[in-house]
Amino acid sequence: MPIILGVDPGSRITGYGIIRVEGRHTEYIDSGCIRVGEKPMAERLRVIFQSLVTLIAEFRPEEFAIEQVFMARNPDSALKLGQARGAAIVAAATSGLEVHEYSARQVKQAVVGSGGAEKAQVQHMVQVLLSLSRKPQEDAADALAIALCHAHMNQSLLRVAGQGGKARSGRMRQQ
Amino acid sequence: MPIILGVDPGSRITGYGIIRVEGRHTEYIDSGCIRVGEKPMAERLRVIFQSLVTLIAEFRPEEFAIEQVFMARNPDSALKLGQARGAAIVAAATSGLEVHEYSARQVKQAVVGSGGAEKAQVQHMVQVLLSLSRKPQEDAADALAIALCHAHMNQSLLRVAGQGGKARSGRMRQQ
Repeated sequence: MPIILGVDPGSRITGYGIIRVEGRHTEYIDSGCIRVGEKPMAERLRVIFQSLVTLIAEFRPEEFAIEQVFMARNPDSALKLGQARGAAIVAAATSGLEVHEYSARQVKQAVVGSGGAEKAQVQHMVQVLLSLSRKPQEDAADALAIALCHAHMNQSLLRVAGQGGKARSGRMRQQ
Repeated sequence: MPIILGVDPGSRITGYGIIRVEGRHTEYIDSGCIRVGEKPMAERLRVIFQSLVTLIAEFRPEEFAIEQVFMARNPDSALKLGQARGAAIVAAATSGLEVHEYSARQVKQAVVGSGGAEKAQVQHMVQVLLSLSRKPQEDAADALAIALCHAHMNQSLLRVAGQGGKARSGRMRQQ
């Protein structure tokens, strides 16, 4: 069953989370943070890209999910976030992975059951859902939540396909 | 003498321009547009990255210059522009090129002699400075202007170093 890489990009810290989906069961594989806050901008982007390319080569995920950004706070932070996102998406796309995007609301809804959930609730539910012995770091938890959201969307889809007799994966997977 | 790749990134069209600097003389090598407007977002970024990696492999520039963005119009367009910039910068940084950034004002000042110059003036001066038989396309002209700006900064620097007896390249090249 598929391995999913979830990424929560940022100009200082990019979280990543890798899970394996076995039917309705999800298993933790790896997670962590790519910290680039002290480096010059081009070097930050190079490190985000290269770290993700290395993770993709090591864990060979079949699916890549990233948070969709609707409303950034201001143009300057949106530009910086966009650059980090660009570096992350290029890492996935040049590795041949399809890129799936989910809004923060979709991720919270899938993991906590409420689109307006707090960060701490997301961290807690990620720990519970993946049977982790302790809370993952915040950015890593967000990335794992994005991966879980993608797994959930695929499972909902399988159920819909099973009940209705029609596979709708093409449409529903294009988030 | 160095070959310079200038890039003007955009979420729909990314302009590029390649020039060779021989002392005070600048020579046109190539320019063009990477048009990705009709593709899905991740594919746009992959094509920007891959096109620039291919250009870098073909023309082997030693220097890479890109426009610095101070004020984007709004968070949404800043995010899209940031993603395109991220893809372009990662192409340069993973190819081992140092990334130099110049503000639109610096580029116009270097090419037209006025920081508040119009786009059409930039196009005209790029044509004149590089002895082109016709006006380059607008995004390609902007990219050539960025490359010319970088060449100009390096030349100013060489003059300063020559007159003062001190090489200040380390500091001045970090735009």
